[in-house]
Amino acid sequence: MRPLPLLPLLLLTGAQAPAPRTPAEIIAQAPAAAWRDISADDLLLVDLRDGGRVVIQLAPAFAPVHVANIKALARGNWWEGATIYRVQDNYVVQWGNNQSDRPFPSAVVEKPPAEYTRPLRGLTVRPVGFPDPYAPAAGYALGWPVAYDSKAGWANLAHCYASVGVGRGLSPDTGTGGELYAVIGHAPRHLDRNIAVVGRVIEGIEKMSALPRGTEALGFYKEPSQHVPIASVRLASQLPEAERPQFQHMSTASADFGNYVRARANRRDDFFIRPAGGVDVCNAPVPVRRKPAQ
Amino acid sequence: MRPLPLLPLLLLTGAQAPAPRTPAEIIAQAPAAAWRDISADDLLLVDLRDGGRVVIQLAPAFAPVHVANIKALARGNWWEGATIYRVQDNYVVQWGNNQSDRPFPSAVVEKPPAEYTRPLRGLTVRPVGFPDPYAPAAGYALGWPVAYDSKAGWANLAHCYASVGVGRGLSPDTGTGGELYAVIGHAPRHLDRNIAVVGRVIEGIEKMSALPRGTEALGFYKEPSQHVPIASVRLASQLPEAERPQFQHMSTASADFGNYVRARANRRDDFFIRPAGGVDVCNAPVPVRRKPAQ
Repeated sequence: MRPLPLLPLLLLTGAQAPAPRTPAEIIAQAPAAAWRDISADDLLLVDLRDGGRVVIQLAPAFAPVHVANIKALARGNWWEGATIYRVQDNYVVQWGNNQSDRPFPSAVVEKPPAEYTRPLRGLTVRPVGFPDPYAPAAGYALGWPVAYDSKAGWANLAHCYASVGVGRGLSPDTGTGGELYAVIGHAPRHLDRNIAVVGRVIEGIEKMSALPRGTEALGFYKEPSQHVPIASVRLASQLPEAERPQFQHMSTASADFGNYVRARANRRDDFFIRPAGGVDVCNAPVPVRRKPAQ
Repeated sequence: MRPLPLLPLLLLTGAQAPAPRTPAEIIAQAPAAAWRDISADDLLLVDLRDGGRVVIQLAPAFAPVHVANIKALARGNWWEGATIYRVQDNYVVQWGNNQSDRPFPSAVVEKPPAEYTRPLRGLTVRPVGFPDPYAPAAGYALGWPVAYDSKAGWANLAHCYASVGVGRGLSPDTGTGGELYAVIGHAPRHLDRNIAVVGRVIEGIEKMSALPRGTEALGFYKEPSQHVPIASVRLASQLPEAERPQFQHMSTASADFGNYVRARANRRDDFFIRPAGGVDVCNAPVPVRRKPAQ
């Protein structure tokens, strides 16, 4: 009488009409052609000293200078000794070498441009199809959630759960990429166009989201002993080829992805009684998976 | 050079024009008249055995039968031996007596009506003022975030971060209130009008959101030994008066609250460069505070 999982397994419906596909079924059944390999050079591997790996996909098409900085910092081993030093509930986890005077590798641009938006030109955007409270429109491009303004001609990566951005001080500072944060709460879309978003966590977000919250203002840990040590931050391309994790994201231009977004907006799994008829861009995240064995 | 908190303290701006007030300043400066006491009978106290209290404000105006059930379960000590048994990342924490055959107190309605919406009539709604992807409109009423349809005449509590709802099986089951969940991720608004929302966590959500994620399907813990024991679930009204925590929420009908929502939609703190010009109803949560000493 009360097993009550929130989203129980689909019941077999016998002789009835076939149930509409669930979002999970659409993902599972999407053909290989609907998936895109993620370059090993765009995978940032954050290994925690006490175990666990957080995998971040970088977004060079949206913040090229900041992403190049991050790659230079990884290759230069700049994050040696880095820690997670801030965990603010329903907001962000932040890590880096906050208190260090370690010099940057020479390839790092210390004052990057404000890559908070990019030109819409060159992007083919699939609209999510429902109103967005934060921008004239929202949708998907190149495998990423975006907000955009067709008239003004800009697009930005939307701040969603698991988005990774560049910590910075007050304007006009844009941050170097040395201090990064991941979103662990409701999408803080008010940060859109105010911070450089450089990627998203695609595996292991729970290694960050389940950390104890910091008790100081803004969720900073009070004591250095509370900091969570990071063993290494490397690009997958720095590893021997056999050791590189391989990921794919669903092509946001594919018909399968369109079906997935529509299914997220109109949930007809047996559990649902009233499909919403709409969805926000952060609640239909782009599917990502480990690349299947060939 | 790289202290980089995401939201640094407001700089003193000297002789310049006074900065627009931040959301935090509007809350701090709101007069006593802008606040409403929360009844001790609407405060559910979930005390974890290993320390920590989670305080939930119940919403009898939206789900009266389910809320009455929850009060009867608390008064009948039905949750003795209850645990948190499910923690699904970016979704929910769920607790109760999932595996128990404990009989319900006689006051419990075992098959409550589907209190997924309520009539809009009788509610004075303050619109959030920006488009909502999930419903014709969103706003606030009686201190709660709501979605609503003026033409059809319904309103529902919006599923936001920290919302508390009633676990249930497949339709037409609506759940009794014995199994509850709290949202610990991006607002799962697709659950709106599909589940009875009965309240929200107003203090201590981090005691739930920072728990280890369950590794089984839907975030269920694999082993009973992983369950997080709950020492007691009581209404504040069951405690001696001197021991009752006292809370207030900001009146969503107050001018201060209107200012607060506008400030959330148009962040002009020094950190922000481009105010969004919009906000979603879950990203401007109703302010709640401990009642100040008289």
